Amino acid sequence: MTDTPRLRGALAPVVTPFTADLAPDPARLVAHCRWLLDNDTGLAVFGTNSEGNSLSVAEKIALLDALVDAGIPPSRMMPGTGCCALPDTVALTRHAVRNGCAGVLMLPPFYYKGVSDDGLFASYAEVIERVGDAGLRIYLYHIPQVSQVPLAIGLIERLLDRYPGTIAGIKDSSGNFDNTRAMLERWNARGFDVFSGSETFLLATLRGGGAGCISATANVNPAPIARLARDWRKPDADAKQAALDRARTIFQSFPMVAALKAAIADFSDDDNWARLRPPLVALTHEERNALGERLRAIGFAMPGLADETAAA
Amino acid sequence: MTDTPRLRGALAPVVTPFTADLAPDPARLVAHCRWLLDNDTGLAVFGTNSEGNSLSVAEKIALLDALVDAGIPPSRMMPGTGCCALPDTVALTRHAVRNGCAGVLMLPPFYYKGVSDDGLFASYAEVIERVGDAGLRIYLYHIPQVSQVPLAIGLIERLLDRYPGTIAGIKDSSGNFDNTRAMLERWNARGFDVFSGSETFLLATLRGGGAGCISATANVNPAPIARLARDWRKPDADAKQAALDRARTIFQSFPMVAALKAAIADFSDDDNWARLRPPLVALTHEERNALGERLRAIGFAMPGLADETAAA
Repeated sequence: MTDTPRLRGALAPVVTPFTADLAPDPARLVAHCRWLLDNDTGLAVFGTNSEGNSLSVAEKIALLDALVDAGIPPSRMMPGTGCCALPDTVALTRHAVRNGCAGVLMLPPFYYKGVSDDGLFASYAEVIERVGDAGLRIYLYHIPQVSQVPLAIGLIERLLDRYPGTIAGIKDSSGNFDNTRAMLERWNARGFDVFSGSETFLLATLRGGGAGCISATANVNPAPIARLARDWRKPDADAKQAALDRARTIFQSFPMVAALKAAIADFSDDDNWARLRPPLVALTHEERNALGERLRAIGFAMPGLADETAAA
Repeated sequence: MTDTPRLRGALAPVVTPFTADLAPDPARLVAHCRWLLDNDTGLAVFGTNSEGNSLSVAEKIALLDALVDAGIPPSRMMPGTGCCALPDTVALTRHAVRNGCAGVLMLPPFYYKGVSDDGLFASYAEVIERVGDAGLRIYLYHIPQVSQVPLAIGLIERLLDRYPGTIAGIKDSSGNFDNTRAMLERWNARGFDVFSGSETFLLATLRGGGAGCISATANVNPAPIARLARDWRKPDADAKQAALDRARTIFQSFPMVAALKAAIADFSDDDNWARLRPPLVALTHEERNALGERLRAIGFAMPGLADETAAA
């Protein structure tokens, strides 16, 4: 993993397809990952929008193996590995490192609330020590509105000081760009890669020296997001950002994971994609129609998706 | 499990001892469970105060097996089985039912916040259908300040209507007795057993027709709590409640799990008990001294604990 180039640009927290009995569907996941890679988008499998924490550790290990066996390059992967229980986080992280994943995206343990920075430091430190691999690259995952366990600046600083090679960056999903900017200003010089949690802040993050974005909607709009990540110095960057925002706004008007899956189901003409695992639920028929209408109204498309998935 | 009498009275969310390398310690857990049973207190293993969600599913299954193998009666057990991922909750619940546990205490999936009642209903329904055992008794676990996923009255009503034999009761850890009272008034007549989440509300819960309490401090003060649960109709009940409150108030002034473990370590003279798994941390030396002093000042004791643990 140490020789792997650092991940940059656009990554998708890859949505997880389910079969009729709610088991993960590796063939459809592989097809979707291929389409994302074809569109210059990296693979943050097992994230929040992947329903990653609705999957067991064994299911995630089996899916990762299925991806690798299918030839999806681990050098383009940043699987989510942070669980509530230390042995789960260690097992998943170790499996990702051994498979050569470019990095892992690590939630803090998220059951207990109001835990101390000492406790969070110990959580990350135990994982790092137990995995014990110089190739491990951890991207911290700050998503306080979901995890309810924020990662404070002081905690991150302590981790960076203690594990400078291993703490590789962060995904800031707080939705607060002031927070992202503070991280950029503080740690850019230390090779700490800041990803925004939404393409809404992609241009601002890149202009501030950040690495890119890991965004839900990169599942459905990968090429345009990846293009802005690549061409952000060009004069049309603000126009590109505005176009991304128009699509994002539509998806954000619906429950996000359900909307992503409904769009993939519609554009690939494969209703299997519309399933979610409880506690998340699919869009209603009315919501799905409304989403489709609003997407068509802005000329939204997912070029090549139907071919890729049909070939699966 | 259907022939097992319903659990009533005092239950402890049994604290989980760890070895020096932070592995669960089955021998010490068995000894502590014996002491709790000797003191008329049931065993809600793998709860919040058990660091239940800091344990992997495999660890919980191994601990449950160790308890059963040691002769701890499953008829006195209500293990926590609610995880974020459906297959984990199903596996743990199935294992508990097959071992004859009197019930299970089930958190809703707690990673996603703001989920719909439809999604929560589907979560519980999928577990019930997949376990598919008429002997399953589910106690819902309402602890919104930790899970951040409250169980609304309407959701519980729907579950009770659909699975009247299986939805056996609730642990209300909201700390809001108005909520507990509403449940008692609404569902007492339907054989729905309401446990308060703290002995602070034990007398009020029993007077309202409730079943008892499942309380952190039943780990350290089991006999007096169990005595009030048994003798709550006697004239000295209010005095007993006041005595319980004095001990509870002291423990509540510290991080709870750490304080319970520090007290067990001190009263059994076994420092191994003081360990917690990250993200929770042990009391500082100063905190531990302060806890000990305040407990001695009210004459607090844990009779028989040292003998039980020494015999382990």
